[in-house]
Amino acid sequence: MSADRCVFCQIVAGELPSTMIAEEERAVAFMDINPATPGHLLVVPRDHAQDVFSVAADDLAACASLAQRMACLVRDRLGADGVNLLQSSGAAAWQTVFHLHVHVIPRYAGDPLRLPWQPRPGDPEEIASVAAKLRSA
Amino acid sequence: MSADRCVFCQIVAGELPSTMIAEEERAVAFMDINPATPGHLLVVPRDHAQDVFSVAADDLAACASLAQRMACLVRDRLGADGVNLLQSSGAAAWQTVFHLHVHVIPRYAGDPLRLPWQPRPGDPEEIASVAAKLRSA
Repeated sequence: MSADRCVFCQIVAGELPSTMIAEEERAVAFMDINPATPGHLLVVPRDHAQDVFSVAADDLAACASLAQRMACLVRDRLGADGVNLLQSSGAAAWQTVFHLHVHVIPRYAGDPLRLPWQPRPGDPEEIASVAAKLRSA
Repeated sequence: MSADRCVFCQIVAGELPSTMIAEEERAVAFMDINPATPGHLLVVPRDHAQDVFSVAADDLAACASLAQRMACLVRDRLGADGVNLLQSSGAAAWQTVFHLHVHVIPRYAGDPLRLPWQPRPGDPEEIASVAAKLRSA
């Protein structure tokens, strides 16, 4: 897949719609449209990199830092009891979009999450409602 | 739990045995004794931090960098087809040792991994054999 057809590159460039939550110099965070739990976000580097094996050190550091910021945000704004950060590199590791991404998965006491989850589209209104909480000042 | 009784602080200090694979200035990597797959490693900061919410930025960056290096290592030395990096913050997110750690989980095409895995002690000889491959020049 060439970088210019990559769906996450298109989201970063604003050529595909997304529910953006944070935009930093080297990385952005937006809502996963197939959320494993309410508030599930993806953090991706702006520059295309396929996976953890090939991502530039600065971009990986930027993703880790933004993932931390998003983890605190879902705890503070959504009342998450915990967070999983998950990075999947390679089809054997459940990677399905080949632009490096870190899942920020809010966890709630007693939630039934198992990985891999069955991706299915979330309710757009619920995602928008959660995003509004994450964006509020 | 006070930091000086933390099991990972004791491993970092050499006060508890571990199968150490890499020792850097701010982070170390050692074999998980309850491996989810062969070659499962843990990356932890030397300085105690409970979770992603509280870890210092420099220590998080060091863990991300070392996790990347370990991901490449398990691919190159063990023939892993992919890697999952997993960070669990909070009991609701499956955290059981309250010193931040990043799981580096080698994945092999067709392996049956589901998360959370059922932790059970790995075969010490197998872990030692894998560690020897990871350490070889």
